[in-house]
Amino acid sequence: MRIVSLAGGIGGARFLRGLKAAAPGSDITVIGNTGDDITLFGLRVCPDLDTVMYTLGGGIDEEQGWGRVGESHVVKEELAAYGMEPQWFGLGDRDFATHIVRSQMLAAGYPLSQVTQALCDRWQPGVRLLPMSDDRTETHVVISDENGRRAVHFQEWWVRLRASVPAEQISLVGADEAVPAPGVLEAIGAADVVILPPSNPVVSIGTILQIPGIRAAVEDKTVVGVSPIIGGAPVRGMADACLTAIGVETSAQAVLELYGSRLVDGWLVAEEDKGVALDGVTVEARPLLMNSPEATRDIAAAALALAHTLRA
Amino acid sequence: MRIVSLAGGIGGARFLRGLKAAAPGSDITVIGNTGDDITLFGLRVCPDLDTVMYTLGGGIDEEQGWGRVGESHVVKEELAAYGMEPQWFGLGDRDFATHIVRSQMLAAGYPLSQVTQALCDRWQPGVRLLPMSDDRTETHVVISDENGRRAVHFQEWWVRLRASVPAEQISLVGADEAVPAPGVLEAIGAADVVILPPSNPVVSIGTILQIPGIRAAVEDKTVVGVSPIIGGAPVRGMADACLTAIGVETSAQAVLELYGSRLVDGWLVAEEDKGVALDGVTVEARPLLMNSPEATRDIAAAALALAHTLRA
Repeated sequence: MRIVSLAGGIGGARFLRGLKAAAPGSDITVIGNTGDDITLFGLRVCPDLDTVMYTLGGGIDEEQGWGRVGESHVVKEELAAYGMEPQWFGLGDRDFATHIVRSQMLAAGYPLSQVTQALCDRWQPGVRLLPMSDDRTETHVVISDENGRRAVHFQEWWVRLRASVPAEQISLVGADEAVPAPGVLEAIGAADVVILPPSNPVVSIGTILQIPGIRAAVEDKTVVGVSPIIGGAPVRGMADACLTAIGVETSAQAVLELYGSRLVDGWLVAEEDKGVALDGVTVEARPLLMNSPEATRDIAAAALALAHTLRA
Repeated sequence: MRIVSLAGGIGGARFLRGLKAAAPGSDITVIGNTGDDITLFGLRVCPDLDTVMYTLGGGIDEEQGWGRVGESHVVKEELAAYGMEPQWFGLGDRDFATHIVRSQMLAAGYPLSQVTQALCDRWQPGVRLLPMSDDRTETHVVISDENGRRAVHFQEWWVRLRASVPAEQISLVGADEAVPAPGVLEAIGAADVVILPPSNPVVSIGTILQIPGIRAAVEDKTVVGVSPIIGGAPVRGMADACLTAIGVETSAQAVLELYGSRLVDGWLVAEEDKGVALDGVTVEARPLLMNSPEATRDIAAAALALAHTLRA
């Protein structure tokens, strides 16, 4: 079976681990969000791609959900001793090496997709990991605080401010001119099913769908999504702050409507959300908490089973 | 007293520590060799400047003579896990931070002299540390080995090959077009005395003197040099391999002749080299082993005392 999954960071990566377990032997292509990417200390950091790569490659800090297991922070402390900013973004020493390799390859002229492939040569994530685009796009968030109304990089809002200041607007700078990375449209076109994990519907899945051509390609396929909202709250992270910013309620129903029936054919919700419904979409209620590898595998298996039914 | 000292790496840095102790309250400007600089993993590494900065700033690994005390090597191991080359250059995690700061500032358009000053803001070396030039120059070494006759970067010959393959030629690529960094000629012009520490006469002091304008400026001053050769062998390092490459004998006499009487006014040699002589140069024999901070301070004091006599 040929599966394509869009993915953000922690939630997406954990779901993908379940998907691999649920569909052994399948050909899985992951299209990763790069709107969160940021240049820190002159190095290009791709948090979502790395979280997927480390999680599927066995290098993730399981407890934290991001970054490397057994991590140390000597470089970061030294940069702070030099007075370098920002100090609010947690880069570990092992992680730094990844960014150094990436930055060197980018500077040498390799596109991000080839760089990602080179990094995955080491990690062997067991999926084909593609950035949504080789073009640089960046999610910016408009906020108002003591410094006035201004746009900040997504990471500054998300990590430094912990989304505590309301987002007035969220936009993907550079989206209009970006094109999907090589292989993205081909993988979607060849897919038997496209899965939307319970990643952030605004700044992860929503971002990927903003790259011209990707949404249309996905709409042509059998698509099953897993609700990132359970009983009115995000499973993890601060998806509510992002949904509020774009005027969408934090509910499994509202996220389904946001995606729409042109995009989604099947929708998995938690049991407490079993009333969710949308014309043209098959909704199934089941446990959605990814609180163990087995539970996560079962959720992915249910998504695939639903897709199978829909294609029949 | 206004003192200018040219300097290479380990030997120069240790001598400078003695010089600071011998001349408290003096205004010391150090002109550092940058011919050894190398770009590794996309980061600009300035081994000699850093060795001086760390040594005088209290951050050096005393035993090793270079690199940071209490160093770890996580980043290097991770880069090796990605298959990145070269693996023969020992960069520690603390040291990486220095190169990250430097590279980011260089990329932002700051000249190396300003970058060095910014790094020294943290280290407070107690001297004014200037790179010989803000222009990029690189010492290349012509060797013949199983891969044929070719030029390699100085560091590849020095660190990877440990100077075990004879150097057929040593040249500073880019020297002709380089200009002294801001403040270099001014500091030499204003100096009461110029000191040449027992640094490598070919690839450290010799390199600095190749930047157009520096040699002439130094020749105008009272210059005292400390022989880097004691009884036919280098005090430290592999100066003999460098001297052989340029057809100069490894002796205190030959190095003095290499510098010449136009450049040097006073020359300190070890007691076993007391026969050394050159017209127009005052030679003094005394213990030259820098085997303790006190011994090193006394050597520097002797150099300053000789300079004082020569100026009287």
